[in-house]
Amino acid sequence: MTLAWNRYGKARVRLVKVTKALPVHELIDLTVDVQLEGTFDPVYDGDNTLCVATDTMKNTVYAFARQHPVDQVEGFARRLADHFGAKQAVTKVRIAAVEHPWARLTNHAFIQPGGDQWTTVVTRDASGTEIVSGVTNLVVLKTTDSAFAGFPRDQFTTLPETENRIFATSVTARWTYRAGFTDYAVRVGIRQVLIETFAAHDSRSVQHTLKAMAEAALAACPGIAEITLSLPNRHHLLVDLTPFGLDNPNEIFVATDQPFGLIEATVRRSR
Amino acid sequence: MTLAWNRYGKARVRLVKVTKALPVHELIDLTVDVQLEGTFDPVYDGDNTLCVATDTMKNTVYAFARQHPVDQVEGFARRLADHFGAKQAVTKVRIAAVEHPWARLTNHAFIQPGGDQWTTVVTRDASGTEIVSGVTNLVVLKTTDSAFAGFPRDQFTTLPETENRIFATSVTARWTYRAGFTDYAVRVGIRQVLIETFAAHDSRSVQHTLKAMAEAALAACPGIAEITLSLPNRHHLLVDLTPFGLDNPNEIFVATDQPFGLIEATVRRSR
Amino acid sequence: MTLAWNRYGKARVRLVKVTKALPVHELIDLTVDVQLEGTFDPVYDGDNTLCVATDTMKNTVYAFARQHPVDQVEGFARRLADHFGAKQAVTKVRIAAVEHPWARLTNHAFIQPGGDQWTTVVTRDASGTEIVSGVTNLVVLKTTDSAFAGFPRDQFTTLPETENRIFATSVTARWTYRAGFTDYAVRVGIRQVLIETFAAHDSRSVQHTLKAMAEAALAACPGIAEITLSLPNRHHLLVDLTPFGLDNPNEIFVATDQPFGLIEATVRRSR
Amino acid sequence: MTLAWNRYGKARVRLVKVTKALPVHELIDLTVDVQLEGTFDPVYDGDNTLCVATDTMKNTVYAFARQHPVDQVEGFARRLADHFGAKQAVTKVRIAAVEHPWARLTNHAFIQPGGDQWTTVVTRDASGTEIVSGVTNLVVLKTTDSAFAGFPRDQFTTLPETENRIFATSVTARWTYRAGFTDYAVRVGIRQVLIETFAAHDSRSVQHTLKAMAEAALAACPGIAEITLSLPNRHHLLVDLTPFGLDNPNEIFVATDQPFGLIEATVRRSR
Repeated sequence: MTLAWNRYGKARVRLVKVTKALPVHELIDLTVDVQLEGTFDPVYDGDNTLCVATDTMKNTVYAFARQHPVDQVEGFARRLADHFGAKQAVTKVRIAAVEHPWARLTNHAFIQPGGDQWTTVVTRDASGTEIVSGVTNLVVLKTTDSAFAGFPRDQFTTLPETENRIFATSVTARWTYRAGFTDYAVRVGIRQVLIETFAAHDSRSVQHTLKAMAEAALAACPGIAEITLSLPNRHHLLVDLTPFGLDNPNEIFVATDQPFGLIEATVRRSR
Repeated sequence: MTLAWNRYGKARVRLVKVTKALPVHELIDLTVDVQLEGTFDPVYDGDNTLCVATDTMKNTVYAFARQHPVDQVEGFARRLADHFGAKQAVTKVRIAAVEHPWARLTNHAFIQPGGDQWTTVVTRDASGTEIVSGVTNLVVLKTTDSAFAGFPRDQFTTLPETENRIFATSVTARWTYRAGFTDYAVRVGIRQVLIETFAAHDSRSVQHTLKAMAEAALAACPGIAEITLSLPNRHHLLVDLTPFGLDNPNEIFVATDQPFGLIEATVRRSR
Repeated sequence: MTLAWNRYGKARVRLVKVTKALPVHELIDLTVDVQLEGTFDPVYDGDNTLCVATDTMKNTVYAFARQHPVDQVEGFARRLADHFGAKQAVTKVRIAAVEHPWARLTNHAFIQPGGDQWTTVVTRDASGTEIVSGVTNLVVLKTTDSAFAGFPRDQFTTLPETENRIFATSVTARWTYRAGFTDYAVRVGIRQVLIETFAAHDSRSVQHTLKAMAEAALAACPGIAEITLSLPNRHHLLVDLTPFGLDNPNEIFVATDQPFGLIEATVRRSR
Repeated sequence: MTLAWNRYGKARVRLVKVTKALPVHELIDLTVDVQLEGTFDPVYDGDNTLCVATDTMKNTVYAFARQHPVDQVEGFARRLADHFGAKQAVTKVRIAAVEHPWARLTNHAFIQPGGDQWTTVVTRDASGTEIVSGVTNLVVLKTTDSAFAGFPRDQFTTLPETENRIFATSVTARWTYRAGFTDYAVRVGIRQVLIETFAAHDSRSVQHTLKAMAEAALAACPGIAEITLSLPNRHHLLVDLTPFGLDNPNEIFVATDQPFGLIEATVRRSR
């Protein structure tokens, strides 16, 4: 028998860094995962000589946070990737981080807006370093300009065609930066164009809007090579009020959690 | 044996109402619970003559949403309470609602800000109707002006005194309106004064800030008779970096989920 | 303004105790909450002289676990209640514990069965000590012998009567021991009689079965004074297969999470 | 710009099937996901001619459940894969199911044991059909025979070596059946050998035990070609009781949720 693949690391390292150098305090709140792949076969036979403890990984995250800036999460993750990538036996490092935003109230008080969170995944192996940033849990809804019709009907199809439904989704986007691009602050603009395109698009399907959003993001930011969107369809079902002698002109809906449609695609610049 | 207490109802009715009368669409998103108490003893012996089906409760929520405005959630809940309170055998109705806010993007597109949610509980019994509104999941943090010292030390006390810690909490507030008060829009102002007081207070303990927040809310809104605050202490533990030859001047923290301190109190106007 | 009520403490203290005195190791896994009420008004004004730190509460749980047996969780919780009840200003102590069961695999290996968990709440105040134990997350289902008919019909009722539905619920039971009763091992028998009664009962409604279960528990265990059951109705909706030319003789169901019926009652011995 | 990859489908279809042909009722409880890949580019441009509605997918799951047996979940998933694989434009179908076990109480009453769940993923594309079954949420713990020592120490390493720690994990296993193998009932034996190997192994690290478990599974079941194990390390931290004048001879632990080590590997038969 053969060890065909292996990976290990520390997940969910919760890091908060406060910078008080100025009267206006800065706050960064991250959840970090560190994962290594490599020629760790002896570890699986009981020899730990090569096995960097996951506890050491955790410590390294905190020590690096003290030694280096973390306000640009991609740069911080890249430093960690470089550090662990230099360890013996390591062939691939994956640093993933979720950044939990806080909005400023005063010089030293903050409110957590909830809603969406920034993400980044830095992957370093022999072929180089790839940086994929994104946004998750971006929940949006539109009350019109969303249709779904013209789909195939077979013996199991009961869904009526509609020209006017609620379209609600929780956007997860992940975009890959071109090699060498480092202006990670563009994420704010990408998020904004995703939202605006969702709001303005005349949708024939979730897929249709997904592509429009992805293309708009690529058009807005030359620094990204491709973008993947994952759009769960948070169904809002029209309630049948006729038993109560009432009509329901697209007004009263049940919001359901499950089941849900899930639409995912990657759009890339053509060569 | 005696049926000493009983209650039943429908929980988690998910209601979304869209109003398209004007080009600027309005959107209300609620989760509603209906609960009844009463002389339902025969039901417990197998006679359902008095047992309004919980399915009927759900239908009623949707039908009322079509027939009546829901933009003022307290008023909508009160209507439901009056409806069910008139049913045979019912001695007490409890309508609880959580309102999930949406922020407007365009005339007909919205983004869910996440963060805090509005709550209301309307209770109707022979003594009248009580309305308790509030806010939940309001997550705030301050990086200074928070101390905890002077507490008693016994053989199990290891916590050092601190004059400068992170204070992070997820505020849940519930305030009771005076009888007859109906200007429920004051909730926006109460939320604002809670946030401002948290941010500005020079805190000696969570309790100390809790009282200041409660008093500020009562001072700001004469229409409320009392307020209860529940403040979990979301601990941020200073990381010991000395093993790595680093100091940590209140800069690098672990955010922990459990265990957590939980501080709760009610402040009421004196007679 | 007046501090009308207050309570504080430490929640979610995760305690695992392993006893290796014998080759057959013993394992106890608890989540403990400590809550105090009392005349803590000065704390709310910034004076911490009376404010036992919640960190000290946590430490006390661990130290007591080393010093005392925890295999009988009620007894362990009572010790903690007595300890904190003797502190200055404390008028009421509430110790709540959830016990996570583990099943033995070998002398020193265990599997977590999941499913239900034991609970206990010990409350100590000037009037004495009350012990309420129970079980939660006990998920049961029956495929027949469950009806719901004869309920009132109004303009909002669409639910058909049924003589044969699925009855699924997640039982939470809490029973109060008579003063002085200490044979807490009866919990195993109470759990068993609750399950057996659920399985065997010819149900006219959730309420009907709830009462039968409660009465059976009281009959089986003279040491308990009353019992409260909370039975969410985990609806299983019959799928309409007629559009596909298929019947559905009570065979294919959708299991739904929300909304759900929630039935709660307390049954007590008559004097 | 190019649509580089796309997938869509319905997630979390909750299916319960009851078979009452005999007095001993049978119960199957599944959560099913359907996902399709294919040449759906026109859909992303607003033409839904090829876009099988995800609502139709859901209906198909329920109709197939009425028409076909589901007691062997792999076979049921394969039928669904074949059905959707025959649709126009589809190049790949992925049917994933989680089976929620129920234990029998009587002929027609059941208890949900909680704990682990069965999983299966059937993938069908031009190259054939692959079936990967497994188990998830299998939580096990051992109180001895677990060491971690001999690992490298750098400037960020503080973890002491240990010859005797608690080893707790929630096993997720996924094994791939050889082509043509259809005796899916072997899953019970594979689960058993995973548990027994965990319990009996003299562990030098999580990795060490992972490999032993994987090899034991492959040895026990010739029908599987490879197995992937994912073992989160549910850390149990020894509490420092010395401030209270107490020792702690591996007896009192804090069970922590995060951060956690995560160890994953695939073991495959050598050619």
